[in-house]
Amino acid sequence: MLLQAAANLNLDIHLLDPDPQAPCRALTPQFEVGSLTDEETVYAFGSRMDLITIEIENVNVRALERLEAEGKKVYPEPRVLRLIQDKRLQKQFYAEHNLPTAPFALIDHPSQLIKYTSWLPAYLKLGREGYDGKGVMRLSSPTDYARAFEAPSLIEQAAPVAKELAVIVARNAQGQTACYPAVEMVFDPQYNLVDYLLAPAQIDEATAAAAQALAVTVIEKLAMTGLLAVEMFLTLDGELWVNEVAPRTHNSGHSSIEGNVTSQFEQHLRAILNLPLGSTKTRSLAAMVNLIGAEGYQGTAYYQGLEEVLALEEVYLHLYGKTITKPGRKMGHITLTADSVEALQQKIAFIKKTLRVISQ
Amino acid sequence: MLLQAAANLNLDIHLLDPDPQAPCRALTPQFEVGSLTDEETVYAFGSRMDLITIEIENVNVRALERLEAEGKKVYPEPRVLRLIQDKRLQKQFYAEHNLPTAPFALIDHPSQLIKYTSWLPAYLKLGREGYDGKGVMRLSSPTDYARAFEAPSLIEQAAPVAKELAVIVARNAQGQTACYPAVEMVFDPQYNLVDYLLAPAQIDEATAAAAQALAVTVIEKLAMTGLLAVEMFLTLDGELWVNEVAPRTHNSGHSSIEGNVTSQFEQHLRAILNLPLGSTKTRSLAAMVNLIGAEGYQGTAYYQGLEEVLALEEVYLHLYGKTITKPGRKMGHITLTADSVEALQQKIAFIKKTLRVISQ
Repeated sequence: MLLQAAANLNLDIHLLDPDPQAPCRALTPQFEVGSLTDEETVYAFGSRMDLITIEIENVNVRALERLEAEGKKVYPEPRVLRLIQDKRLQKQFYAEHNLPTAPFALIDHPSQLIKYTSWLPAYLKLGREGYDGKGVMRLSSPTDYARAFEAPSLIEQAAPVAKELAVIVARNAQGQTACYPAVEMVFDPQYNLVDYLLAPAQIDEATAAAAQALAVTVIEKLAMTGLLAVEMFLTLDGELWVNEVAPRTHNSGHSSIEGNVTSQFEQHLRAILNLPLGSTKTRSLAAMVNLIGAEGYQGTAYYQGLEEVLALEEVYLHLYGKTITKPGRKMGHITLTADSVEALQQKIAFIKKTLRVISQ
Repeated sequence: MLLQAAANLNLDIHLLDPDPQAPCRALTPQFEVGSLTDEETVYAFGSRMDLITIEIENVNVRALERLEAEGKKVYPEPRVLRLIQDKRLQKQFYAEHNLPTAPFALIDHPSQLIKYTSWLPAYLKLGREGYDGKGVMRLSSPTDYARAFEAPSLIEQAAPVAKELAVIVARNAQGQTACYPAVEMVFDPQYNLVDYLLAPAQIDEATAAAAQALAVTVIEKLAMTGLLAVEMFLTLDGELWVNEVAPRTHNSGHSSIEGNVTSQFEQHLRAILNLPLGSTKTRSLAAMVNLIGAEGYQGTAYYQGLEEVLALEEVYLHLYGKTITKPGRKMGHITLTADSVEALQQKIAFIKKTLRVISQ
């Protein structure tokens, strides 16, 4: 999707990806296979570029710091990536800057957990290497401590969640910021991936304004260049707590392609190129459904029911070019627009009933 | 733009283009250089594909007919391309099917022109090889006959034009059709290219409905699969006359990317893949401005004033990846959306004053 947006700006993009079958390779002749976590690979690739950006946080930061020190533009800045790669540093950053977040404590060894039994239910999060629900464990009772991570982690009180929100905010090198309206996420309990997303979130105006203000504060405190997805909890008391941030285009921003004036992908490019940021105005109420590989199917993907879904009004299909499906794999998404939440929900229900990603 | 849309559908696209520097090569590793008018080149390329489509009419039709005879899907159908490649056949087709069009006569030799002096002012159009204003000559007085084309051509009475309209219509192999609202074109007199375009056209409802009905009739009479751009004159008497048609995605449809639910590029793909056609509903009033190489500049393109234009609200930039500018060359386009024609016109005026495609 970033390449689709980059084409409109005549950008000369080279890609580094560890997977020789990465879907992006179908969209560029300038594709290189290489490890994103190997310092020399990332450094050698970046040293041939003018500007380096990322689509995944798990990239070797030392290589990016060396490139930055040599005068390359690296956005988001490596120091931001270093902070965000470690959930412990991330939480400490919120605490230091008085950014509201769930109460937490650092855990260096599982034996320390017993001190926090009064916090249960709580979450235990690995400091590093967590991604898409991995590296997070729910602690319901002290018996769960036996399964606790051995590596440095943090315990976080379960927030009294009314809604989960996400706000995408951009900042360019001049310090201009532009913030999208908050979106509302509904999670699939089985895979802990976003199930569907409503944009904008169905929250009152004051909360919507507060969510945007909080996201702007976070990106300004980080002083980062690029796009930041700020995942938040709206608590039962009406407070907003920062959950996690991602310094890149994000699943929660996909509906911006059709739902907002400027897509998050173009906005990211505008931000890192230090161009004026685009309007984040809502064009239409929208929903986004992830297309996830069905349980029990592994192999060449087949999108059962796709024709019926494409016959719906205002349905935007985005397949990700992945050849192989497996249970829980994100294979694409569909954005829907409509005049009411009820109309969106009807279409979502139809899609969930009709469309399945199976193998041939 | 077709590749950008194709990526959303996981299509495996190979491209044939005579220009080793064709902009599309930046968007695919599956790019081949070869002549589109050489029968064996086109045939050899197509014989490795499942389905063949075109983005320019000037493709060797014999090769496409051979591919079709061997069972390949070729859309638009070669017989349609054969008809449209020859403006004389195209006009005769309109006459045979009672489709309203400007009065015309076939001219096999310039000496025949004297018979039509009472028609002046008129246009002389080459039967074959005309493109983007080339192969068309205005005849104002009999002295112009001396410059007339020697090759088979046609003379056409100048229509009493109130507005020039274009209607994009799609038809899939099942015969389903979907028609976009008419758009209104304003031409640049210097280059005879579309200067800007208003979508939808500012015409009364009855005329808008008649324009759509006429476009549907044309594609049904052609019985073609794919996308057809039907350029029409709205005469001073309020009649609609078919001017020319193009069986492909078309400059007059570019604003559909942002202005309509389904872009013409996705619609073309849906049509040729025999998928349900997408909604053509207008999302927003839109205008489209071509970015054309400025007079007096040839060389590596530089987009002077681009940052100021990107700072406008609701401005969508589409650069075409062309490295070299020259006077009159189409280098990209900008689509604008707004709530009123006046707001669009103000933005267009600002863009025309601010943005110039020059050389570095």
